[in-house]
Amino acid sequence: MLFERAAIVGVGLIGGSLALAARAAGLFGETVGLGRTPANLATALRRGIVDRTTHDPAAIGPVDLVVLAVPVRSTASLAAALLPHLAPGTVVTDVGSVKREVVEALEAVLPPDRPFVGAHPIAGSEHAGAAAASADLFRGARCILTPTGRTDAAALARVRALWQGVGARVEEMSPGAHDRALAWTSHVEHALAYALVRAIAGADPALLAAGGPSLRDATRVAASPAELWRDIFLANADAVGDAIAKVVGELDGLRRAIASGDATALHKLLAAAVAAKRGEHWP
Amino acid sequence: MLFERAAIVGVGLIGGSLALAARAAGLFGETVGLGRTPANLATALRRGIVDRTTHDPAAIGPVDLVVLAVPVRSTASLAAALLPHLAPGTVVTDVGSVKREVVEALEAVLPPDRPFVGAHPIAGSEHAGAAAASADLFRGARCILTPTGRTDAAALARVRALWQGVGARVEEMSPGAHDRALAWTSHVEHALAYALVRAIAGADPALLAAGGPSLRDATRVAASPAELWRDIFLANADAVGDAIAKVVGELDGLRRAIASGDATALHKLLAAAVAAKRGEHWP
Repeated sequence: MLFERAAIVGVGLIGGSLALAARAAGLFGETVGLGRTPANLATALRRGIVDRTTHDPAAIGPVDLVVLAVPVRSTASLAAALLPHLAPGTVVTDVGSVKREVVEALEAVLPPDRPFVGAHPIAGSEHAGAAAASADLFRGARCILTPTGRTDAAALARVRALWQGVGARVEEMSPGAHDRALAWTSHVEHALAYALVRAIAGADPALLAAGGPSLRDATRVAASPAELWRDIFLANADAVGDAIAKVVGELDGLRRAIASGDATALHKLLAAAVAAKRGEHWP
Repeated sequence: MLFERAAIVGVGLIGGSLALAARAAGLFGETVGLGRTPANLATALRRGIVDRTTHDPAAIGPVDLVVLAVPVRSTASLAAALLPHLAPGTVVTDVGSVKREVVEALEAVLPPDRPFVGAHPIAGSEHAGAAAASADLFRGARCILTPTGRTDAAALARVRALWQGVGARVEEMSPGAHDRALAWTSHVEHALAYALVRAIAGADPALLAAGGPSLRDATRVAASPAELWRDIFLANADAVGDAIAKVVGELDGLRRAIASGDATALHKLLAAAVAAKRGEHWP
């Protein structure tokens, strides 16, 4: 057993799936779920995701692992509320999609004897809550750990073992490098999906149900919770804003080539994208 | 047998899949494939998609159906090249993703005794060519027929029977209504995918291979052939340009809310998109 007593703070898709997977793999003993929504906690209990639940940080009892799985801007305040109730040696980790701001805040809140390890499993879906949790969610997925000069080596090794134990491919990256990469590979895609749905709904909401596979894929993640993505966008504002501006620049280029009827210029713009997408080259 | 002798002009993903499906359903007799790429025609022959192939419009022989399945801006010139070799009564149809320009051009090129029926099966993938053709591609897919005041009723009924026979759900729409709807449900999604791939490749091409499911879904269709989409964008330039401009407007709105750090405004923008995507309402 890797952790005798684990606390999942926020028993949603990610926190719930981690608990299910870790328990199935024999990595967690008694597991407590902390959350604010009674119906979601009841679902978590009924599905065997956790052994007991509470809405009160003071009631989590003795644990040797805390997994913070809440919207990123709630992470630090929850850690502060939990701190008086954590014994020395308790490992604290998170699953947030933004790391620089979260890691800085958690390292400021937690003392060295409650070691913090930043983690971001790149998995999930547009579904939310304990009802959507799955023990297979992390199998084959990447999980990025973001240690700093302050990270405790033993805690890092245990968190690494946890993610490997649930089937993830673990990598390490600095918090800043993580955030710059994720702005391009996840955050801007969510901004595009939200913007596209807003534009289509503004034109004719009925079209959202009428489309084929390209509409479905382009808008899938726009069902992701607004609170979650508000926090991610704000916590990675510079990199996300820069990525959005660059995509807008490319869209303007396509629009100008289309409006001018310049078939050669338009073909060149598209062909370079096709080659890059197919992994052939980027001219 | 619905058509004794069918000609597939452009034996790619769509033309090849239609031939496979129609032959499996007993709707086509002898089938000839017309194309310009010898290797692709050889694949089509080897896979049993067609019985014989040619690159010469004069050599298609007697047929009672011509399916034009080429990039939309090649459709009218190919129909003109084929016309001298088509017997009266031959039904001509297409599969193009843009209808107003194509239908107008085909109705101008073809005389009434070679009746034209515009069709657009909403299926496909980012893969191309006879190698990617599948007899199941249209099962359960929508197929939009775009008759006009000039459309021959008997030819329309036969083309409808063809698409129903390969498993499609057939609808009718005017060419203009089709193009306005598809600009939102397919064309702008392709523009977004091409623009996103261009922006990511401009930042760091390695990121294209490093992403998770949201990157994969958002860029999937950017592997679609540049020639095909150049023609679609140009043939539906006004509606596509308008849709791109509206998405850019929404992206700018998100970017401003993120840059200003206005959590309330950003949450409101995202929550409306989530509600629309989930089909709840559009405020």
